[in-house]
Amino acid sequence: MRARYAKPGTSPGLEAVTEEKPALEFKVVVISYDKDQLTETELPLTEVPAPDPADRRVTWIRFPAMPDAASLAHFGDRWNLHPLDLEDVINTGQRPKTEIRDGQTFTILQVPALEDELSIRVRQVCLFLGPNYVISIREDGPPMFDRVLNRLHTGGRSGRIRGSGPDYLFYSLLDATVDHGFPVVEALNDFVEDLEGELLENADAVSLDTLHRLRRDLTTLRRSQWPARDALDPLLNEAHSPLSKKVRGFMRDCLDHQMHVNESIEVLKENAIGLQELFLSVQGHRLNDVMKVLTIIATIFIPLSFFTGLYGMNFNTDISPWNMPELNTRYGYPALLLLLVGVASGMLVFFKRRGWF
Amino acid sequence: MRARYAKPGTSPGLEAVTEEKPALEFKVVVISYDKDQLTETELPLTEVPAPDPADRRVTWIRFPAMPDAASLAHFGDRWNLHPLDLEDVINTGQRPKTEIRDGQTFTILQVPALEDELSIRVRQVCLFLGPNYVISIREDGPPMFDRVLNRLHTGGRSGRIRGSGPDYLFYSLLDATVDHGFPVVEALNDFVEDLEGELLENADAVSLDTLHRLRRDLTTLRRSQWPARDALDPLLNEAHSPLSKKVRGFMRDCLDHQMHVNESIEVLKENAIGLQELFLSVQGHRLNDVMKVLTIIATIFIPLSFFTGLYGMNFNTDISPWNMPELNTRYGYPALLLLLVGVASGMLVFFKRRGWF
Amino acid sequence: MRARYAKPGTSPGLEAVTEEKPALEFKVVVISYDKDQLTETELPLTEVPAPDPADRRVTWIRFPAMPDAASLAHFGDRWNLHPLDLEDVINTGQRPKTEIRDGQTFTILQVPALEDELSIRVRQVCLFLGPNYVISIREDGPPMFDRVLNRLHTGGRSGRIRGSGPDYLFYSLLDATVDHGFPVVEALNDFVEDLEGELLENADAVSLDTLHRLRRDLTTLRRSQWPARDALDPLLNEAHSPLSKKVRGFMRDCLDHQMHVNESIEVLKENAIGLQELFLSVQGHRLNDVMKVLTIIATIFIPLSFFTGLYGMNFNTDISPWNMPELNTRYGYPALLLLLVGVASGMLVFFKRRGWF
Amino acid sequence: MRARYAKPGTSPGLEAVTEEKPALEFKVVVISYDKDQLTETELPLTEVPAPDPADRRVTWIRFPAMPDAASLAHFGDRWNLHPLDLEDVINTGQRPKTEIRDGQTFTILQVPALEDELSIRVRQVCLFLGPNYVISIREDGPPMFDRVLNRLHTGGRSGRIRGSGPDYLFYSLLDATVDHGFPVVEALNDFVEDLEGELLENADAVSLDTLHRLRRDLTTLRRSQWPARDALDPLLNEAHSPLSKKVRGFMRDCLDHQMHVNESIEVLKENAIGLQELFLSVQGHRLNDVMKVLTIIATIFIPLSFFTGLYGMNFNTDISPWNMPELNTRYGYPALLLLLVGVASGMLVFFKRRGWF
Amino acid sequence: MRARYAKPGTSPGLEAVTEEKPALEFKVVVISYDKDQLTETELPLTEVPAPDPADRRVTWIRFPAMPDAASLAHFGDRWNLHPLDLEDVINTGQRPKTEIRDGQTFTILQVPALEDELSIRVRQVCLFLGPNYVISIREDGPPMFDRVLNRLHTGGRSGRIRGSGPDYLFYSLLDATVDHGFPVVEALNDFVEDLEGELLENADAVSLDTLHRLRRDLTTLRRSQWPARDALDPLLNEAHSPLSKKVRGFMRDCLDHQMHVNESIEVLKENAIGLQELFLSVQGHRLNDVMKVLTIIATIFIPLSFFTGLYGMNFNTDISPWNMPELNTRYGYPALLLLLVGVASGMLVFFKRRGWF
Repeated sequence: MRARYAKPGTSPGLEAVTEEKPALEFKVVVISYDKDQLTETELPLTEVPAPDPADRRVTWIRFPAMPDAASLAHFGDRWNLHPLDLEDVINTGQRPKTEIRDGQTFTILQVPALEDELSIRVRQVCLFLGPNYVISIREDGPPMFDRVLNRLHTGGRSGRIRGSGPDYLFYSLLDATVDHGFPVVEALNDFVEDLEGELLENADAVSLDTLHRLRRDLTTLRRSQWPARDALDPLLNEAHSPLSKKVRGFMRDCLDHQMHVNESIEVLKENAIGLQELFLSVQGHRLNDVMKVLTIIATIFIPLSFFTGLYGMNFNTDISPWNMPELNTRYGYPALLLLLVGVASGMLVFFKRRGWF
Repeated sequence: MRARYAKPGTSPGLEAVTEEKPALEFKVVVISYDKDQLTETELPLTEVPAPDPADRRVTWIRFPAMPDAASLAHFGDRWNLHPLDLEDVINTGQRPKTEIRDGQTFTILQVPALEDELSIRVRQVCLFLGPNYVISIREDGPPMFDRVLNRLHTGGRSGRIRGSGPDYLFYSLLDATVDHGFPVVEALNDFVEDLEGELLENADAVSLDTLHRLRRDLTTLRRSQWPARDALDPLLNEAHSPLSKKVRGFMRDCLDHQMHVNESIEVLKENAIGLQELFLSVQGHRLNDVMKVLTIIATIFIPLSFFTGLYGMNFNTDISPWNMPELNTRYGYPALLLLLVGVASGMLVFFKRRGWF
Repeated sequence: MRARYAKPGTSPGLEAVTEEKPALEFKVVVISYDKDQLTETELPLTEVPAPDPADRRVTWIRFPAMPDAASLAHFGDRWNLHPLDLEDVINTGQRPKTEIRDGQTFTILQVPALEDELSIRVRQVCLFLGPNYVISIREDGPPMFDRVLNRLHTGGRSGRIRGSGPDYLFYSLLDATVDHGFPVVEALNDFVEDLEGELLENADAVSLDTLHRLRRDLTTLRRSQWPARDALDPLLNEAHSPLSKKVRGFMRDCLDHQMHVNESIEVLKENAIGLQELFLSVQGHRLNDVMKVLTIIATIFIPLSFFTGLYGMNFNTDISPWNMPELNTRYGYPALLLLLVGVASGMLVFFKRRGWF
Repeated sequence: MRARYAKPGTSPGLEAVTEEKPALEFKVVVISYDKDQLTETELPLTEVPAPDPADRRVTWIRFPAMPDAASLAHFGDRWNLHPLDLEDVINTGQRPKTEIRDGQTFTILQVPALEDELSIRVRQVCLFLGPNYVISIREDGPPMFDRVLNRLHTGGRSGRIRGSGPDYLFYSLLDATVDHGFPVVEALNDFVEDLEGELLENADAVSLDTLHRLRRDLTTLRRSQWPARDALDPLLNEAHSPLSKKVRGFMRDCLDHQMHVNESIEVLKENAIGLQELFLSVQGHRLNDVMKVLTIIATIFIPLSFFTGLYGMNFNTDISPWNMPELNTRYGYPALLLLLVGVASGMLVFFKRRGWF
Repeated sequence: MRARYAKPGTSPGLEAVTEEKPALEFKVVVISYDKDQLTETELPLTEVPAPDPADRRVTWIRFPAMPDAASLAHFGDRWNLHPLDLEDVINTGQRPKTEIRDGQTFTILQVPALEDELSIRVRQVCLFLGPNYVISIREDGPPMFDRVLNRLHTGGRSGRIRGSGPDYLFYSLLDATVDHGFPVVEALNDFVEDLEGELLENADAVSLDTLHRLRRDLTTLRRSQWPARDALDPLLNEAHSPLSKKVRGFMRDCLDHQMHVNESIEVLKENAIGLQELFLSVQGHRLNDVMKVLTIIATIFIPLSFFTGLYGMNFNTDISPWNMPELNTRYGYPALLLLLVGVASGMLVFFKRRGWF
């Protein structure tokens, strides 16, 4: 999750590109609905008509992927979107935030997804809320808002979503975005628990690399989710919020989900650190066990070797009865063997008693 | 304590299930009382009558276990409970919070219990407070509010609980819920102290596994209890609180208990970390002791072996008087033995003096 | 410092015991004074008359020890003390707090004392302030307020304490309580400094156990003192404080003392952690020194032994002049001895030059 | 980034130097513009005319490098700059801050730059905003505001920058300053990632020194950037901000960039710490591997040497059939060789099975 | 920096000593000035006249050292200083704070000084600000305010300090006090950098003791400076500040300096911790290097010794051609020597290739 950024000192917004030619073939889905009917059409972005303030229906412009900068600048001009917002849309990797402007609200969130076992991909979702429209733009990836579209289609007259204003649609999209954090957190939770089980059973099954990548993933995840709380908070502030009181009630629940995700990430981080410490402890423990056994073996044989060395000396036994008389006794050798066995056993017993193995 | 969650993008609340058929056999206990009388009846959930705003008595709907979603949705419809609250009731594992809505307050808390020595189970408790009723719903487990019910029965005319409104009952249930934290904290405290004693006496009696599980338990416990403070706090806020001034006085005491539990958990965490560090220190200390003794033994014998090796050489003593004349002296062998004893003793004395063992 | 607590779900306050019979023999000291005169009488608690709102004198009820619950409930009834406060008085180990109620203020503090070298005992002190009375109740232990009583006796007409209202007495008792933290902090400071000196001089003089107990003590101390700041703070709040403006000026100084104690505890904790790290470093350093010397000894002798082994081989020198001709040379043995001394010296010089010992 | 400072007790501001002679040859660039025209002249600092409050055009005084104190004091006198601000301009290394005074705003920021691979240089940038002028003063180094100047030149009538007041120019310079943090953060990010890759592949490629310098760099970077948030914040405060509402909208984006930089630095720090831990783990792991293999080799040969020592003993086989009869058997030697191979293989198998290598 | 404190329960203020006889010989410097003239006289403290509210000149009472308690109490009586403030003056080691009372402001700061290389001494400075006077009292030590006095003397008519009120003098003294932190921080910075250089060059040049004392010093320094921010802050608060608006502008700069000092201390602490970690890493690295080389030497010789032991065995070659026939071959010995060289070289190559040394 790295932010793309313009060179320091360049003009803010998308001015630089407004003179480029928009890519005519980029298409978006335009959904218009009220309680009674719903239309869904696919149009090239350059042909989407400007919003009609008199239209009582809610219009949802759904971008299926990232447009090119020129098309977006062109569209933003007609829809009166703030140039700084457009810049943020193009320069993905922005930190989550909400800008409440007169008559228009702009929210950026970052949606995490687990690409494969341990590789988090964070994608930017941008939402605009106007008096009678909602615009959703997201980085390329699997579709995110199909279930919301489905509810729009099936909800009909009785559904809450069709009977409410654009703020409820805006909330529904935010909620769907925030809820994408749950499965990621859940999957990481499972991963951490599995790792923990493996680690306590067989330390070699887990590599330092895995643990390190887990921590980096959690850092990325946390960075993408933590500021989301501050991004959602102004939507609940009574004085400036563009949401009606009823929708604010739902929004509080959405913020609650975000905080649940954030706290889960904190707990995950703590567990990951605990896991790393456990890994080091288990590794150290194992190594110590190995070294201890090996050292004990060496320690037992070194005194034994001393005795064999002793009787390997060449003192002249012929010259003097004081010189190694043991060598010439009848049972010298078996006696020495007994002595060696005795010394070794004694040491083993001693080590065992002191609990050294 | 993992939250259950709906798929991202699905409709909030329990809409999806309202068309399922409620399980008719799920029964709740309905207790109605005022100063003078008390009735307690068990009814199927679907047959509980809607609340009567004119009723001067307090009604307590006590769910003995988790209802099925359809029954709950059905009941919530008649009692006008907010769909988001019902969703939170069903999706257990929510973070503690309080929602103060017009005419109805909803509080979620998480109650910890030690299943066996080191295995914390957290159960969700949900409470609704209306103008003249209280609803308590909890995850399955041993009964929690029997003592409160008892006080209702025995309190009679003179008791505080029978003479107060539904807010006092609501407080009593919250208080009973919060106080369940004390025995858990106490038991963990005892556990940590025992562990500490064992550790300082015999490091092998304690396993890495136990310490790791202790820390994980405390992480879970902390996560379930920490946000409870923020959940209880709005009940004390004069402007919005649904509680009367008198009950707020009691409620402050309840919040105080929660903070006591929270601080105890923090202290426990700190002690657990200290314990882990102590464990590593003690383990390392012991290993070092073993290694040191073994190394000293090896170090003493290696020079001795050098001497035995020396006199095991086969230089031809016949050719020259310079070649190992010691071998042919009368007292060569005993002299060497004395030398060896001397070297060994010297090293032992040296090691001892420098405090190496 | 563990809180005693009632079973979850039981009634708050001391209701359960009000029907027990009070212990008639429990006596308290009743001190009444104004500028001109002072009376001090000892009465059974049950015979202390109810406070007289018209009395212009200040009355101080001084409990010399903890009363039994029944006596206290009986007394609380007549003096109109809040049942939750009475419960906190009995269940010692409460966290410090202040409750400002209409016409009555209740403060709990925890006073630390060093029983012996490293064993902190925390005792609860409870103070009630009414319109013309102060009540002080404390856990058993050495007397704490004798100096204040002395000032009352000797202060006479000119003294500040006799000429002021009950709020000044209340402040004086709080101040005496808070100031008990200073000698404890001071003693621990000395202890830490001594330990540090010992450690740097002789690491073996300090045990892991001592360091561990020091940290635990500081955790206890911190927990008992940290919340005292929040307990004293509301007494300074202009809007609700029961203290006159003049006494609030003094009270600010008392809060300042508490903060001084708190910060000292933080610094002590930091120093204790630093000490523990130092201990481990010093221990590790020493062990490494030992191991290094021993390894060097072993390393020097192992090559020497190789040479002795070499010339201990039994190749047949008679068969071939190629087989170990050294054995049959005139100065073979002394030459080898020289070689051995050379190898050993060379290695020692090499090790020395690289700074290995 | 060390602050230069005056001696304690000396007068604040530049009083001490006002009597020195200004360096006449120090030149600045004076740019005046409005929608229609733009003039750019280079003047000696001492000849820059005092600001004309009636001038409707925006004047930008651009210092290409640090002036000498006397020139600056002289200039500040005529332009009515606050002596404390001038002191901060001269004493580089100040912490970022904004002073909003009547009719004049003064902002200090610190711009980081990577001199070479791992060596951050922080340079101070000072900006003054008056009713119709902006002054930019910066420490010596590569030019920073060329792109802004370019926009002024090319913007012409249609450009946003030429059509706006001095506050927009002020914002543009701040934005250019803040955005200089991005490439530094990006480069460090790449550096950390490269290091990580190298480390996991070949631990010896990375030195302790590099990691240590990385951490120090991040400490410097953080210190120079962290307070920038507080420095920019007052410019957004509606009540006191010298910026028009429209420019505040842009300014919020600039603050957002600063926070992005700050959070990136935090993440970098976390990653650097993770890297250091990884480094130690990998190093420890490698050493343990080496020691283990070496110890296993030694452990296998020590018992073998015992056997060779055993049969090197000189017990007199002639005297007694009990003395080492193996030496005189036909296949004694090959049998022993087989035994030795067997013992060695057995130990290898045993070690292998227990997963010791 | 330990606070001196009165026994718990004693009366606040200096009451206890007011009846002692003041030390008549303690002298202070009384400086009175306005724009036009300045008088400086040295008087015994007991003879300093009470302040005259009608005097338009500013009076500065400068204590050259700590007075005895009785003199101070006597003086405080006449000048109407608050008894708690006097107590704080005497009991040095107080935490920095500001008390704004009606018509009088009292500020305590702690000034650090490096006595010698690594030994911080903290001294208390107390300042009183009245309607037309300033009192400065400090612990014994080198003079601190000579430069301010100098500015008073030389400033004359044109100087800012002589033309301003007592609040500007008060600010100047505070500023001089705060600025004493800079050289200390600077010196410690140099010390840390030197240490770092030495450490990376030669780890043995740095002792554990030095690092430990550095950390302790920083703890002391931090404790004495950190609360200074809160002490200076109330002087900037518009509603209560005793300073005029113009002086508050200067005061903000002074607070800024304090924050710069505080942040520098934080960075120093971080660097000191990094240094300690570096020290341990470097030490560990070195030890590992030593152990590795020694172990490699031992490992190479142990197999060689095995072979020499092998051919030192006494199997009877006469009895059987199977018994060690190598001993009787012509080139047995040189072949063995070649083998030994080969084994040793092989192992060296193997170790080298795996990068073990």
